[in-house]
Amino acid sequence: MTGSAAPPDAMLALVEALRRLPGVGVKSAQRMAYHLLQHDRDGALRLSQALDHAVHGIRHCERCHTFTEQPVCAACLDPARDTRLLCVVETPADQAAVERTGTYRGLYFVLMGRLSPLDGVGVQDIGLPELLARVREGEVREVIVATNFTAEGEVTAHAVAEALRALDVRVTRLARGVPIGSELEYVDLGTIAHAFSERR
Amino acid sequence: MTGSAAPPDAMLALVEALRRLPGVGVKSAQRMAYHLLQHDRDGALRLSQALDHAVHGIRHCERCHTFTEQPVCAACLDPARDTRLLCVVETPADQAAVERTGTYRGLYFVLMGRLSPLDGVGVQDIGLPELLARVREGEVREVIVATNFTAEGEVTAHAVAEALRALDVRVTRLARGVPIGSELEYVDLGTIAHAFSERR
Ligand SMILES: [Zn+2]
Ligand SMILES: [Zn+2]
Repeated sequence: MTGSAAPPDAMLALVEALRRLPGVGVKSAQRMAYHLLQHDRDGALRLSQALDHAVHGIRHCERCHTFTEQPVCAACLDPARDTRLLCVVETPADQAAVERTGTYRGLYFVLMGRLSPLDGVGVQDIGLPELLARVREGEVREVIVATNFTAEGEVTAHAVAEALRALDVRVTRLARGVPIGSELEYVDLGTIAHAFSERR
Repeated sequence: MTGSAAPPDAMLALVEALRRLPGVGVKSAQRMAYHLLQHDRDGALRLSQALDHAVHGIRHCERCHTFTEQPVCAACLDPARDTRLLCVVETPADQAAVERTGTYRGLYFVLMGRLSPLDGVGVQDIGLPELLARVREGEVREVIVATNFTAEGEVTAHAVAEALRALDVRVTRLARGVPIGSELEYVDLGTIAHAFSERR
């Protein structure tokens, strides 16, 4: 829109910035901007600060690659965890889903993604070299591959298993109790817990 | 979640802040936070700044109540507009929809909402006293009520018309070419333009 009734520049910039959120189109972005400015300016300022703090405060754990505010995350430093078990997941949300089952006491390696050659996501991008180096240290006895049971998750699991084949480590996959085609994050806890005990 | 694998505080704060956006639940907020931190930190900083600028820079026009970065918006100051016509709309998005038709050259009054007694939104909240004062100034000859053709929009239109009844001003409503039950923002331009010419 042009002319004297055009929205103010700061409004247009806000709508453009909101559109970069996943799943947010131009109409949703306009509604969000209107809602924040008309009904929730405090919420807008909180979101502004939360974004700033997160971007400047959150990094990747040097050991497991999950999000953390420290060089090494609390899980990797937790002396109560079994350092012989390493569970490989795609995202922190998947890590949280496994953690909520309460059945796993080992460590994690978070790929922060999945193999997707068509999107240009290769083995470097999911940290596979670092995962191999980690296993070569010798302490890990079993790698539990808990990538999602989607097409890309299975390809990723296969690549992880292949890469670890030459090393002296047991590689297991969660049992197929997890429904095919689903994403771990949305699976009920009992199913995940069962799949853990039935891992092969 | 508790324990050593809990997400960092800055991540939890970001998810909470994103949940305050309209239409965003906890799962969507988690996906947005992950996407921004893993794939679009530049977008996160831009959104942070856009929110801050918008909250601190955008106010309501003293004349028409729409969003503006000046005390009085450009439309209200535009000498090319017909000051005898005043179009009453619910939101800046509705104002933009009318403006896009290119058929209206008068001024606007933006209610920044609609009457909704059940939600505690009364005549003060939509600026009805200021609208009456504006019309009493004497320059406006016709008030075109272009609230949405929803139940609340019709109630609002009725209240506006009732409030203006005693004043020496013509009060019209957009013709019913606009589909009943729809929101102006989503109506095609031709329909809105036609409804303007058929206003009664
Ligand atoms: Zn870690
Ligand atoms: Zn104005």
